[in-house]
Amino acid sequence: MPKKVDHEARREEISEALWRIASTRGLEGASLRDVAAEAGISLGRLQHYFRGKDEMLLFALRYINRLADQRIRERIEALPGEPSPRAVLRACLSGMLPLDDKSRIGVLVGAAYFARAIHDEGLRAEAKEGIPKLRAFFADQLRAAAERGELAPDRATDDEAMLLISLVDGLSAYVLLDVHTPEQAVRLLDLHLGNLFGGGEGAEVAG
Amino acid sequence: MPKKVDHEARREEISEALWRIASTRGLEGASLRDVAAEAGISLGRLQHYFRGKDEMLLFALRYINRLADQRIRERIEALPGEPSPRAVLRACLSGMLPLDDKSRIGVLVGAAYFARAIHDEGLRAEAKEGIPKLRAFFADQLRAAAERGELAPDRATDDEAMLLISLVDGLSAYVLLDVHTPEQAVRLLDLHLGNLFGGGEGAEVAG
Repeated sequence: MPKKVDHEARREEISEALWRIASTRGLEGASLRDVAAEAGISLGRLQHYFRGKDEMLLFALRYINRLADQRIRERIEALPGEPSPRAVLRACLSGMLPLDDKSRIGVLVGAAYFARAIHDEGLRAEAKEGIPKLRAFFADQLRAAAERGELAPDRATDDEAMLLISLVDGLSAYVLLDVHTPEQAVRLLDLHLGNLFGGGEGAEVAG
Repeated sequence: MPKKVDHEARREEISEALWRIASTRGLEGASLRDVAAEAGISLGRLQHYFRGKDEMLLFALRYINRLADQRIRERIEALPGEPSPRAVLRACLSGMLPLDDKSRIGVLVGAAYFARAIHDEGLRAEAKEGIPKLRAFFADQLRAAAERGELAPDRATDDEAMLLISLVDGLSAYVLLDVHTPEQAVRLLDLHLGNLFGGGEGAEVAG
């Protein structure tokens, strides 16, 4: 393996150890030493890959966001035929909910970062970095739906996009608190999409 | 001051020290010793009021929830005339957003608890304890609105109530991350309520 690729692969392995800690007990108390132990390496070895906790946290956050992006892109590509904007939106939004082990770990890690980011400006900048892009993508889908006559033309697409993002965030939090099950969260998401688009259209994308 | 009242007042003072820590740097790293220092008392003195961290966390959570309830009740009572169900809902929901110093501290403390609760069953039970009651109250308001002809009669009131709770949670999280301002969060909440109830009705409760 070339040196650079190897270096990146080691950083990813350490990130995965960090995620295990984030998803089992949160990040606040986690030291570099804890992460090294979880990764099965010495503290000195870990410090060869990351100069400090901030650098490690940022790398691991970017890495998990990249995997989540990829998972959601795969969900969209797996949609049959020429998917409608509504079907694309539903695939993205349900892909952001903690519905299986992988997405649950992603949401748990996100929650651990959130708890740190509200008190840490650097991490906050990173944690919110993807939101405008996501919002713009959702707004584009909503505008495309309006052009196809599948959404009322007077909808405020930018704001509706932000409502969707906020709603999924809240639905995910309540899954983590066991207020509702993942299935109930999907049902609530579908109710919101039904209200937005109207009627039972797009029901073909269920599942 | 009677002894029992004094004991309760001391526990509330210690809780307020805990909130200051929760709202400035989160709860994960906070020890009993940190809270005692913030409260300006000795560790031994603190342990006279709370046997351990769990007992202290639970008391402080119940106390802040009680204050939030009271604040929201006052917002409802301050509504002019006979408020519509929609106006009552808006007062509650906007009262749950971090719009001023007091509600912001409440939401920050809530976020700190959330980060712990997803890994702690006892705290999770307490953190979600109020949700069914809140959901039932919101569903009652929605049913009352439907009876008055102010909401489409085919709305799934229980689920719409849970959507409202989830949405406010997500909107609050994004205020804490500086994704949007408190004012933008209120505007998004109003957009959702406008979609739910239809049109500009209830605009008289703005502010």
